[in-house]
Amino acid sequence: MIRFGGDYNPEQWPSPVWAEDVGLMLRAGVNLVTVGVFSWSRLQPGPDEFDFGWLDRVLDLLGSAGIGVCLATPTASPPPWFTRLHPTAMPINHDGVRLSHGSRDTYCVNAPAYQSASLEITGRLASRYAGHDALRLWHVHNEYGTTCYCDHCAAAFRRWLAARYGDPATLNDAWSTDFWSQRVSNFDEVLPPRATQYLSNPAQLLDYRRFVSDAMLEHYRSQRALLSGAPVTTNFVLGGWVPVDHARWAREVDIVAIDDYPTTLAERAFAADLARGWARGGPWMLMEHAPSVEAREIAQPYLDRGATGILYFQWRASRGGAEQWHPAMVPHEGPDTPVFREISALGATLRDREPVAVTATSALIYDEQTMWALQSPHLPPRAEGYEATVKRWHRAFDGPVDVVPPDASLGEYDLVVAPLLYLLPAAGHRALRDYVSGGGRLVLTFDSGLVDEHCRVTPGALDDLIGARRIQHDLEPATATVLRHTPDGRPAVLENHYGGGVVRYVATDLDDLGLTLLEI
Amino acid sequence: MIRFGGDYNPEQWPSPVWAEDVGLMLRAGVNLVTVGVFSWSRLQPGPDEFDFGWLDRVLDLLGSAGIGVCLATPTASPPPWFTRLHPTAMPINHDGVRLSHGSRDTYCVNAPAYQSASLEITGRLASRYAGHDALRLWHVHNEYGTTCYCDHCAAAFRRWLAARYGDPATLNDAWSTDFWSQRVSNFDEVLPPRATQYLSNPAQLLDYRRFVSDAMLEHYRSQRALLSGAPVTTNFVLGGWVPVDHARWAREVDIVAIDDYPTTLAERAFAADLARGWARGGPWMLMEHAPSVEAREIAQPYLDRGATGILYFQWRASRGGAEQWHPAMVPHEGPDTPVFREISALGATLRDREPVAVTATSALIYDEQTMWALQSPHLPPRAEGYEATVKRWHRAFDGPVDVVPPDASLGEYDLVVAPLLYLLPAAGHRALRDYVSGGGRLVLTFDSGLVDEHCRVTPGALDDLIGARRIQHDLEPATATVLRHTPDGRPAVLENHYGGGVVRYVATDLDDLGLTLLEI
Amino acid sequence: MIRFGGDYNPEQWPSPVWAEDVGLMLRAGVNLVTVGVFSWSRLQPGPDEFDFGWLDRVLDLLGSAGIGVCLATPTASPPPWFTRLHPTAMPINHDGVRLSHGSRDTYCVNAPAYQSASLEITGRLASRYAGHDALRLWHVHNEYGTTCYCDHCAAAFRRWLAARYGDPATLNDAWSTDFWSQRVSNFDEVLPPRATQYLSNPAQLLDYRRFVSDAMLEHYRSQRALLSGAPVTTNFVLGGWVPVDHARWAREVDIVAIDDYPTTLAERAFAADLARGWARGGPWMLMEHAPSVEAREIAQPYLDRGATGILYFQWRASRGGAEQWHPAMVPHEGPDTPVFREISALGATLRDREPVAVTATSALIYDEQTMWALQSPHLPPRAEGYEATVKRWHRAFDGPVDVVPPDASLGEYDLVVAPLLYLLPAAGHRALRDYVSGGGRLVLTFDSGLVDEHCRVTPGALDDLIGARRIQHDLEPATATVLRHTPDGRPAVLENHYGGGVVRYVATDLDDLGLTLLEI
Repeated sequence: MIRFGGDYNPEQWPSPVWAEDVGLMLRAGVNLVTVGVFSWSRLQPGPDEFDFGWLDRVLDLLGSAGIGVCLATPTASPPPWFTRLHPTAMPINHDGVRLSHGSRDTYCVNAPAYQSASLEITGRLASRYAGHDALRLWHVHNEYGTTCYCDHCAAAFRRWLAARYGDPATLNDAWSTDFWSQRVSNFDEVLPPRATQYLSNPAQLLDYRRFVSDAMLEHYRSQRALLSGAPVTTNFVLGGWVPVDHARWAREVDIVAIDDYPTTLAERAFAADLARGWARGGPWMLMEHAPSVEAREIAQPYLDRGATGILYFQWRASRGGAEQWHPAMVPHEGPDTPVFREISALGATLRDREPVAVTATSALIYDEQTMWALQSPHLPPRAEGYEATVKRWHRAFDGPVDVVPPDASLGEYDLVVAPLLYLLPAAGHRALRDYVSGGGRLVLTFDSGLVDEHCRVTPGALDDLIGARRIQHDLEPATATVLRHTPDGRPAVLENHYGGGVVRYVATDLDDLGLTLLEI
Repeated sequence: MIRFGGDYNPEQWPSPVWAEDVGLMLRAGVNLVTVGVFSWSRLQPGPDEFDFGWLDRVLDLLGSAGIGVCLATPTASPPPWFTRLHPTAMPINHDGVRLSHGSRDTYCVNAPAYQSASLEITGRLASRYAGHDALRLWHVHNEYGTTCYCDHCAAAFRRWLAARYGDPATLNDAWSTDFWSQRVSNFDEVLPPRATQYLSNPAQLLDYRRFVSDAMLEHYRSQRALLSGAPVTTNFVLGGWVPVDHARWAREVDIVAIDDYPTTLAERAFAADLARGWARGGPWMLMEHAPSVEAREIAQPYLDRGATGILYFQWRASRGGAEQWHPAMVPHEGPDTPVFREISALGATLRDREPVAVTATSALIYDEQTMWALQSPHLPPRAEGYEATVKRWHRAFDGPVDVVPPDASLGEYDLVVAPLLYLLPAAGHRALRDYVSGGGRLVLTFDSGLVDEHCRVTPGALDDLIGARRIQHDLEPATATVLRHTPDGRPAVLENHYGGGVVRYVATDLDDLGLTLLEI
Repeated sequence: MIRFGGDYNPEQWPSPVWAEDVGLMLRAGVNLVTVGVFSWSRLQPGPDEFDFGWLDRVLDLLGSAGIGVCLATPTASPPPWFTRLHPTAMPINHDGVRLSHGSRDTYCVNAPAYQSASLEITGRLASRYAGHDALRLWHVHNEYGTTCYCDHCAAAFRRWLAARYGDPATLNDAWSTDFWSQRVSNFDEVLPPRATQYLSNPAQLLDYRRFVSDAMLEHYRSQRALLSGAPVTTNFVLGGWVPVDHARWAREVDIVAIDDYPTTLAERAFAADLARGWARGGPWMLMEHAPSVEAREIAQPYLDRGATGILYFQWRASRGGAEQWHPAMVPHEGPDTPVFREISALGATLRDREPVAVTATSALIYDEQTMWALQSPHLPPRAEGYEATVKRWHRAFDGPVDVVPPDASLGEYDLVVAPLLYLLPAAGHRALRDYVSGGGRLVLTFDSGLVDEHCRVTPGALDDLIGARRIQHDLEPATATVLRHTPDGRPAVLENHYGGGVVRYVATDLDDLGLTLLEI
């Protein structure tokens, strides 16, 4: 069965609409709806008041119609009363501005008051609904992503650093603090990368991303520990601003779930291949995307790449609020509309389908830590960003390719492409060499392997693998052969035999990556 | 008589220049000058010091020359000593930055210290000059427009909301707070729309604009209550950032006065038609515009549309300060200049003229609440903004047209055009239907009537009037006839007979709005 | 001898690398390296801990190899412990954000804690190394440039104003405070030009730039007073944001030193002519520029214009930190690289050269106070900024021209060009008239001489000199002859005989400034 449905927010509607909703869901072939994502202020109207009655009725109604429920913990949007009671649990941004309630995601994940309040509401939901018939999936929080720079975070960051580095000397070495007199004597001297006079330390920036990811993961885990009765997931939102290391988080969910709002079908295919890569053989689903009159065409790349669910944001368009013009399965104008008819047509085609099993023979490496590192200030300008580069390489493949993190097992692939893999720790170096030594075919591109996991430059670190000496963007081939030259005569593509395998190194931006290049 | 003159700031000049000024004013035909707009620090050099002597002399000098005085209360720019004594009366911007003295308009209109200080200086001016021979007009404050987000404002906002909504449940409904868990239990949980983590609630944003407008109007009224001896006005500055609901304020002034700094004659004609519309049959004047060597040509659109006064900012160019390069009637180089000669020529032509009475047969609806609502985050992108759209429609008319607010009386017009009237409360719906039922001819455009006064979507609300079902941007004609199609075959212009009248609905951007379209 | 070398940061490397460095320096012909710029956290790891041992060894090593040392005081980058102990010594930016440690230059030069800490470390360096054999030059701080708006600065600004103006009345007059009610009763009412509601006062802005420059100069002087055993300098960084009045500072250094990071050779020539102008006959050197494979070509414009030193940032590329990708004399890939070979080739050519003595017959006036004044808000738009305008005129000269401040002695020049000299105090007016009266040839351009040293408009102030009346951009020639007209018939270039000399006035942007124009 393919899960089919979307976010359902019955609290925005009077109860007579609920019955109509269930009828329409059945008409559309919906079998799973996500409930409760932003219900905290309804479920807990005050610090000591709780109201689960309406949610009982919603779950019973859905359950009796045979529609499964993905029940969300509502922790991504604390209610106004929480803000008022705990002003220091509101996030502080990079510029020192304490943010206010008035949108969503206004919380500091490291604030004790937020942690206890979010665990309390999750615990109550868990004990009440773990055994409910309609429950199919737990959905923790929503799109983790609020980066905060407050003093709670500073303290937690210091603890995280102490655990990671042990002593200040190791931190100083990792962060290259001798540059610009940043050497610390103890961890208490470290701050989050708040607004400063000039360029920030790239190692500090990168570690802060990792720390925020870990702090959020800790919050996720503490919620997950309370949940039972169904698999647990959270939805991954994509984008360069997101401080979540999804490859790592993917190991902590029972099913990988992504939210995807791209503009092209090629980008959808990329996201699908990426979700499958994160899932490492486990199931993945599309948790959110935008309903449209091209729903069937849009669903195809996900389905072809193994999605076990096609879900939308959202079921019924919200009359008010900041996303009132967001597309919906049931638009403002109701079910007698092209969008709802198209959604229903898709539902019909999915009714008896099973998820596709995908076995790709090629892998494309995508690394969010590299993406973060490439956001450092003062890097040499590039014609395109990291994500655009990887997506361009992805488009060179014809069918599904596994988009995998650098610590994935590569041995089974015929071909591995690693574009712009700027950050490469020792383990990454080993993995690539092991893969090629064992007969693998690897494509690497310029600006790969320039720094280690602490953003420290590692000159020459790939020279043996690519069979050439790299001096900035210039190449002096050693064991490698030049397959192609640039118009002005410099090496554009090198080929090097290494162990039992072969490496191609692409030294410049090419117009035609295509199969010619990949068929090595 | 047409009022002719401008802002006069004698405090910037030694007294010998005053005599020269009066002579030049007489030469130029000036009969009204605005005095005192930024004189607070001269009139009250310290909290307990007052100096009106210089202003006595200025008013006497002007009066004895027969030049009328528009006397301003100086409350738009509190003196430095006020800032120093009352730091919490300085405004806080959206990002939480407390602004400092060093420009103008640094005050929070809801700060008690500011309120009492501004009423004190106004009271003293009022009692001293109410009976002065030269006094022709009171000018309260200047270009109200400082939006603040401080705690004074938060408290006043809550009181305003409590008065408007009565109870939290009504507020929750109006603001659609079930979206993103924003439901409040009491008004104390509400905040101004300060910087937040993601998109703000559009209903909260819109109510905050209304609240700021009302808070400023209260301040205006409390000053007006102190003034006597002449009509009272304040100058309206135009622009999307201004938090003043001018249609509402226009009912509180004895003469509508606008400041207008556009780039084209067509925009001047629009502003003039708008000021006349706000005046609803009462007088209006141009309080500020920029002197230039085309003064006569520039004055014409205002005069043709009923202006009772043509005033400039400012009489004599300021040697220093932030606007030292602002054009002036007497430029830095003195009266022997093309600008002063042109100003004098205009003055001569105005000497024996009377304001034109304008009777327009068509109306164009312009609604600042719609303008504000269209500034909500996350709206579907539009090719042009609200003001540009309305101005484009305005240019389709040949002569004067009344640019009126949506609650204007429409019955007398042959034709009413309502472009992009996004926000339409129930009363607005009734007014349009009454107008058409009674035989009126109405032109509506796409994206009109999409939301109510709380920015809540009202699907289908205009379908009966336009004779078609609207599904997003698609149209399914019912009783309407399609007059024109888009190049790809969709309905572009519909015509629908409704009651005794007719409605044309323009479903897309048209290149040629022109008379063809308007002659329905 | 030409000084040749660059910034050397041995603290970033283990000591075995130091020996290799010295060997490579000798190979490259390096004779001077700047040490210690960012060493504070190494030299003083805690408030009461000092470690000079490593620096002793570095200086001994360099000295015994015959390599001179330019020893920097490390005060531009206080260590993390300082930040932690003295949070109020961190700078506050224009928007009120207190900046954090995490980059460099995080200090308020007016904070007592910073002043005493920076003098302590400088005093210890001074007493330890004043007599060291290797010492050739003291380098105070690095690129002074942190503008702060904190309360320390506010207090110091008031003291500076009181010293400059004596009484509030004089300040009010200078700042034109009657505009917008900014009149102060005492200096305590004055604030730094922090974020405010609308346009800031241009005189306040300009005086704040001057004050910051003077406050930093005071800091420089207090360090210089501690230093002996070698000449003292600091490095001037160029750019519109820099709050340092270099012409004034140049009188306080024993050798003018500039950091220059331009994109064209013409800009390098300009910077060199400017440094020589600041030096007023004394020596100047290039303290920092970027190493490259065109090092010899790039050095030429500086050498041709009298540089006594060609130094780079930096000797060896940093493995980590915010500038890890900054070019270096020894790149990441080591000495066997095109860059190091080119640097060595340049070193070889410099070995037996002496600085060129330059005698220019023409001068180009460049005034940083005019540059600052032209950054005022609300100035009439110009096709290009001040620096671009002056550089364009500079390119019209064939060889070296002295780029001098407006108070330079002009008598010896055949030709003086003063482009866009917006700000012109009475002394500047006198200097230009004296120069022309005495037979000089002067080229002035439009928008020159518009305001005095307090940004107050001075209409007509240049009319006698240019022989025409200026009314905004229009010209009414009096004694001047029109040499060229604009395409639409207005005067483009005027010539006026004045005293024994001649003035050309360029009234519009010309495409061909060239020699035709300059050969007057």
